[in-house]
Amino acid sequence: MYDGLLIVLSGPSGAGKGTIHDKVLKILPNIKKSISVTTRKKRINEIEGVHYYFKTEEEYSQMIADGEFLETASVYCHNYGTPKAPVFEMLKNGNDVIFEIDNFGSRQIKKKYPDALTIYIMPPSFKELESRLIARGTESADSLATRLGNAKRELSEYNDFDYIVFNDDADVAAEKVVAIIRAEKCRMNRNEHIIKGMLENKK
Amino acid sequence: MYDGLLIVLSGPSGAGKGTIHDKVLKILPNIKKSISVTTRKKRINEIEGVHYYFKTEEEYSQMIADGEFLETASVYCHNYGTPKAPVFEMLKNGNDVIFEIDNFGSRQIKKKYPDALTIYIMPPSFKELESRLIARGTESADSLATRLGNAKRELSEYNDFDYIVFNDDADVAAEKVVAIIRAEKCRMNRNEHIIKGMLENKK
Repeated sequence: MYDGLLIVLSGPSGAGKGTIHDKVLKILPNIKKSISVTTRKKRINEIEGVHYYFKTEEEYSQMIADGEFLETASVYCHNYGTPKAPVFEMLKNGNDVIFEIDNFGSRQIKKKYPDALTIYIMPPSFKELESRLIARGTESADSLATRLGNAKRELSEYNDFDYIVFNDDADVAAEKVVAIIRAEKCRMNRNEHIIKGMLENKK
Repeated sequence: MYDGLLIVLSGPSGAGKGTIHDKVLKILPNIKKSISVTTRKKRINEIEGVHYYFKTEEEYSQMIADGEFLETASVYCHNYGTPKAPVFEMLKNGNDVIFEIDNFGSRQIKKKYPDALTIYIMPPSFKELESRLIARGTESADSLATRLGNAKRELSEYNDFDYIVFNDDADVAAEKVVAIIRAEKCRMNRNEHIIKGMLENKK
């Protein structure tokens, strides 16, 4: 277990995890974000190593073969992944690292790093989720039904997550995430090395 | 599992758990305190049912026989105990209840109610604990050695507690306890009934 916390925010589209992610970073600005690797083309305003690490398909496949990813996914024929080494380096240095990622990614991360702190962001009801998705105006009826179906299937896998935060009000929800992060640092199992040190040195 | 949280603050004498307990109640004034039962004589300024429930030795023994206590201890030939029924009633009604109690009491509570949230308050070091006990000026050399010995033995049983809060600054420590209480309410296992309800009603 590293000194830093690996924090995963997940939840269905429409749950507001992006907004909460940004609000948490405003309250706790020292938390680091991880930079993904992708095979998609660099856009004109993007900077290598800031927005993404851009790789060819061959390079990406080699990274998978070498077990270099914490999680990887294919979205519209492009690969996106989180390289393990820089994240573990940050955690080792005592930095907390936050991820905003889907269930599939979250599950991969928890498998590779069981000490990850996983938080599921959920709208207060499915009815509310539906209203939010409709309000976006970007969803076809088909895509809306798919998203709602996915949200129900995903929530039924709730045991994959340590915490759930119902997002009724984004500020309140962000404060809850901040409380969870602060509380986790006080969890007994994360402090065992300190206690053992105290008992050994009797300081 | 009840809707309310049963919160236990424990730690060695000199850890500052009383101060933290009071500060937490100032931040979260809705948390209830439990009223103990005792066999010691009522003092002139004490009110039955406010400070304590005063019982005879016989009544107390009967309560033990009837399994009415969450925890019980004998201190200087008097018995002190926490009656189970009023605490469970408060928890059932969704109220959080806080206890400031020693390790022995905390362990009894956790055994009878495993969903209890147990927080160990610890000075930043044994050196600091010693200084605080000396500063009190109330401890003989013998009693000081006993208290320090007990603190070391108790800390070695750290696995009995869910969280540890190092009390360097009482305000910071109280804020940590508040964060723990807020975070616990978001723990997945404490929200299972809500999630199951959402999935069943698809609301």
